[in-house]
Amino acid sequence: MNQTIETINKRRSCKAFLDKKVPSDIVNEILNAGTKAPSALNKQSASIICIENEDVLNDLRNKLKDFIGKDPLYGARTIAIVVADKNSRCPVQDGSCVLENMFIAATSLGIDTCWINCLHDYFATEEGNSFKKNVLQLSDDQITIGTCAIGYRSNNEIIEKPRKENYIRII
Amino acid sequence: MNQTIETINKRRSCKAFLDKKVPSDIVNEILNAGTKAPSALNKQSASIICIENEDVLNDLRNKLKDFIGKDPLYGARTIAIVVADKNSRCPVQDGSCVLENMFIAATSLGIDTCWINCLHDYFATEEGNSFKKNVLQLSDDQITIGTCAIGYRSNNEIIEKPRKENYIRII
Repeated sequence: MNQTIETINKRRSCKAFLDKKVPSDIVNEILNAGTKAPSALNKQSASIICIENEDVLNDLRNKLKDFIGKDPLYGARTIAIVVADKNSRCPVQDGSCVLENMFIAATSLGIDTCWINCLHDYFATEEGNSFKKNVLQLSDDQITIGTCAIGYRSNNEIIEKPRKENYIRII
Repeated sequence: MNQTIETINKRRSCKAFLDKKVPSDIVNEILNAGTKAPSALNKQSASIICIENEDVLNDLRNKLKDFIGKDPLYGARTIAIVVADKNSRCPVQDGSCVLENMFIAATSLGIDTCWINCLHDYFATEEGNSFKKNVLQLSDDQITIGTCAIGYRSNNEIIEKPRKENYIRII
C-alpha cells in the first residue's frame, strides 16, 4: 500500500484539539491542497475562508456556543470554511472535494481535522447571516458547504470505525 | 512536499481512455479507498456500484450515448457509481468525499479517472430510472452523487488548469 492510500486509510475526525495553533505555513499547505480539487466544468465554484485571527475565531466560537450549547469547533485554533457559488453546476460536490483534499493533506502532515457542519445552520439565522456578510464578507450566493477544523489531537486514542457491509457492490 | 500532497496536486480529469481494462485488484484498491471517506455522523450514507461487466457497461454506455449524443464515459472500461441515501444528513457531501478519495487513490496507483455527472440526469428519465432500479437494483432513496470513470489515459498531454485568484482568503 502506498503512502497516499495509507494516509486516506488513517484519516480520522478529531473531536478534541489541544490549545495549540498550527503554524501558518502548514495551514497554507493544507489550504493549497484544497484548491487542487476537481470541480464541475472546472468552474472552481468553491472558495476557502480560513480564520486564524484569534479574536474573530473566538467571537464566532462564542456565538456558535450560544447557538448549539457547546463549542462545535472542539477547541480548534484554526478553521477553514468552504463556501461555493450556489448558481454553479455542482456547488456541494465541488466544495466537498475541497474539504476532503484538506483532510487528507492535513493527515499526511500529522495534523488533525474535523468536518464541522453547524456553520451552515448558524449562518441561516439572522445573527449568523450578519456575521457571514459583515465579518466574513460573503455574499448571499456563497453557500456554506462545510468547515474544516484544524489542530492537534488532544487524545491519542484513535478508534477505527468499521465500514458497513455491502458498501461496495461489483457488477 | 510529501507523496500524498504531490498526488493531490497531480490528479487530473481524463477525457479519453485507452481501450484497456484496469485489473480488478487495482480497481478494488481504489474502491476501498472510497469507503474510507468521512461521513456526517459516521452514517456512511454512500454506496459504490462498480460496473466491470462488459455487457452491462456497454448497454449503459449506449443508452447514455442516445441520451446525450456521445460517450460520456470517454471509453472507460470500468465505472464506479456513487449513490447515497437521500434521507441522511449530508448525502451529497458524503458521496462526494467517496469520489474524491477514489480519484486520489487512483492517481497514486498510476490510474486515470474522470468525474462523470450525466448519470444523475439520465436516471431521472423513465428509461434511466428503469435501468437504475432493474439492472443496478437501486431504490428510489438512493440518489446518484457522481460517477468515477476508471482507466488509462490515451493521451499523455496533461494540462494544468490554473487556479482562480482569491481561491483562499485568510482572516
